[in-house]
Amino acid sequence: MAEATGGTSQAGRELDRIVFFSDAVFAIAITILILDVGVPDGLSPAQLPDRILGLWPKYLSYVISFLVLAVYWQAHHRVFRPIRGYDGTLVWLNFLFLMAVVFLPFPTSLLGEYGEEQVSVVIYAANAAVASLLLVAMSWYATSGHRLVAPELDLEAERIRRLQALAVPVVFLLSIGISFFSPTAAMYSWLLLAATDLLVRRLWSRR
Amino acid sequence: MAEATGGTSQAGRELDRIVFFSDAVFAIAITILILDVGVPDGLSPAQLPDRILGLWPKYLSYVISFLVLAVYWQAHHRVFRPIRGYDGTLVWLNFLFLMAVVFLPFPTSLLGEYGEEQVSVVIYAANAAVASLLLVAMSWYATSGHRLVAPELDLEAERIRRLQALAVPVVFLLSIGISFFSPTAAMYSWLLLAATDLLVRRLWSRR
Amino acid sequence: MAEATGGTSQAGRELDRIVFFSDAVFAIAITILILDVGVPDGLSPAQLPDRILGLWPKYLSYVISFLVLAVYWQAHHRVFRPIRGYDGTLVWLNFLFLMAVVFLPFPTSLLGEYGEEQVSVVIYAANAAVASLLLVAMSWYATSGHRLVAPELDLEAERIRRLQALAVPVVFLLSIGISFFSPTAAMYSWLLLAATDLLVRRLWSRR
Amino acid sequence: MAEATGGTSQAGRELDRIVFFSDAVFAIAITILILDVGVPDGLSPAQLPDRILGLWPKYLSYVISFLVLAVYWQAHHRVFRPIRGYDGTLVWLNFLFLMAVVFLPFPTSLLGEYGEEQVSVVIYAANAAVASLLLVAMSWYATSGHRLVAPELDLEAERIRRLQALAVPVVFLLSIGISFFSPTAAMYSWLLLAATDLLVRRLWSRR
Repeated sequence: MAEATGGTSQAGRELDRIVFFSDAVFAIAITILILDVGVPDGLSPAQLPDRILGLWPKYLSYVISFLVLAVYWQAHHRVFRPIRGYDGTLVWLNFLFLMAVVFLPFPTSLLGEYGEEQVSVVIYAANAAVASLLLVAMSWYATSGHRLVAPELDLEAERIRRLQALAVPVVFLLSIGISFFSPTAAMYSWLLLAATDLLVRRLWSRR
Repeated sequence: MAEATGGTSQAGRELDRIVFFSDAVFAIAITILILDVGVPDGLSPAQLPDRILGLWPKYLSYVISFLVLAVYWQAHHRVFRPIRGYDGTLVWLNFLFLMAVVFLPFPTSLLGEYGEEQVSVVIYAANAAVASLLLVAMSWYATSGHRLVAPELDLEAERIRRLQALAVPVVFLLSIGISFFSPTAAMYSWLLLAATDLLVRRLWSRR
Repeated sequence: MAEATGGTSQAGRELDRIVFFSDAVFAIAITILILDVGVPDGLSPAQLPDRILGLWPKYLSYVISFLVLAVYWQAHHRVFRPIRGYDGTLVWLNFLFLMAVVFLPFPTSLLGEYGEEQVSVVIYAANAAVASLLLVAMSWYATSGHRLVAPELDLEAERIRRLQALAVPVVFLLSIGISFFSPTAAMYSWLLLAATDLLVRRLWSRR
Repeated sequence: MAEATGGTSQAGRELDRIVFFSDAVFAIAITILILDVGVPDGLSPAQLPDRILGLWPKYLSYVISFLVLAVYWQAHHRVFRPIRGYDGTLVWLNFLFLMAVVFLPFPTSLLGEYGEEQVSVVIYAANAAVASLLLVAMSWYATSGHRLVAPELDLEAERIRRLQALAVPVVFLLSIGISFFSPTAAMYSWLLLAATDLLVRRLWSRR
């Protein structure tokens, strides 16, 4: 079923091209986040310091989305590391994942402008959850039945890793619940993500 | 006539650079689509949810163009897979193709803003049709007489593949006809494209 | 003097990274040209077709700059093809060249907005001339005394190629003179460039 | 502790992907600087030349940031050259460094709009200082105890190189002091940076 698998150099080149394309999309998405932090026009020198400080919700949403994309880039990394071939389904799952990644600057912008509104927080969390679920789906698709991975790969270890990775969408989905009480609290709950990532990595490297 | 052909490592590196450049252009074009989905300024909390929902034509045009570019990236992939060398004509055909790819965010933006107008739909379809015709032209140029491909390549199979690929510009050109009756129907006819792509791929993988 | 020369794999990787970086900058510069072709807001359906046609100076400047950057990318290609090592001077010449390449969207935008004004044409031509002169300087620096090229490279052939490449800045500098009579004529004189490029390539491939 | 070290091809590929990602981010950050130099709308032909000249603070901030990013790209280059493996800490240090790199277009824009105000100069200098300190931290982390470098690497030479590299943040931090007397003088003091870079490079290549 796979268009190309195994260690052939042609398959490797094609797979490299998919990974390279994904990396380029990540690099652009993470860089255009700054375009949202615009400098206001026509301020007097006296107003300037206050107005620059007043942009802090935009700085915060920049930092949050940068960290989220950094976590996702590394997760994408981990998903593709054992993959040795590809097929049309993997390519489309990857494009859907990238569609969610590229969309993230929009809720980031919402968060920077209307961070206290529930709707902003919900859209952000939903976008991030969809992206991470697609990543888990890619890992599941590629490894199940050793479809696109080396035959000697330990599927049980991959399954455990995937369960740990599910912490990311779970945090985002729970934060939608929290947002009904306090959008701000929901936003800060995402910081659990970084902690989660560090934890997963630590547990993993010990194995 | 070709500047470089065959399996020499220098030719391979140059060809890789052309493919890499094209991939980077695709990655940027697909990512800047989101810049068109701007967050409106200065809304009250009460207005916000409605106004965000009201952006749906922009979300829709984002999704359509993302899928179109994903299909074209894969088609570019398939065209270049058998190519082993390059010459000035191939480089220029590729640049003309990329010029059409890079232009796509403009009709995407038209579609998001004035999606019910025939003019938006016609410009979008024309742009997409030109891009896919250039891709077919590249494949024809590279393979005819084994100009830039391996001598053992089955030209007949490539010819059939090219005929199947013509489904893409045909769908877009037909949709221009449909737009005289209903621009919206024309737009939805593009979804045939994804179906077409899946079909082509399925037929192809079976061979 | 060179930090790295010869066929060592480390030097090759570093040189690849410089070339890759330049290609990425080209890809981005060529793609963001479309951001200048913005869709006007708030038009009535009746106005739309006329206003879209009325954007033709923006389409024209998009096409011109796309072609100019395509020519420069290929010229950069030709300059780097014989280069086997690098040093700090080459890296800085390359950055200055890229600074001129990245600047080009600004005069492109000027041309799209104020294409009939001499000042737009002069700035565009000056920018393009500086970029192509830097490219010639890079070629001269890398090859003179076989500084960063293979010892067997035919320097005389490189010198002739460089003289031909000087046609590009010459066309742009002459067009500044023409702009005193007619900015529009100056702009169309740049089309000589594409003809020049085709000619150089043809002459070259015959050698 | 390291996820991957040594000369294995898998580790090398992963490390290449980190370096490639960083290069792509640099390429995008350096290219979007030009988006800040916008063409003013609706000017009469008579006003145009003056208004274009009047944009000089934007040209100046474009040139400064382009040079700063060029210096940082090369410094990143030098830091990664001896590195042979990576771990989670290096990846996160690199992301924090890239977060500072991607942020730079914001103070660049401030500088172009409000270059005479101290607040603009201070934010720019702080951003640049943080980026260069993170680069030094990465070098220190990777080399200390030969953590992620080849065992034969001369750590003493790396330590001296790092001390020289500290000139960059020192210049930026000193310029914050200067800005209390004259923001413009502080800005020009950054030109010391280019001189410093040339000096470091010269000293280094002599060793």
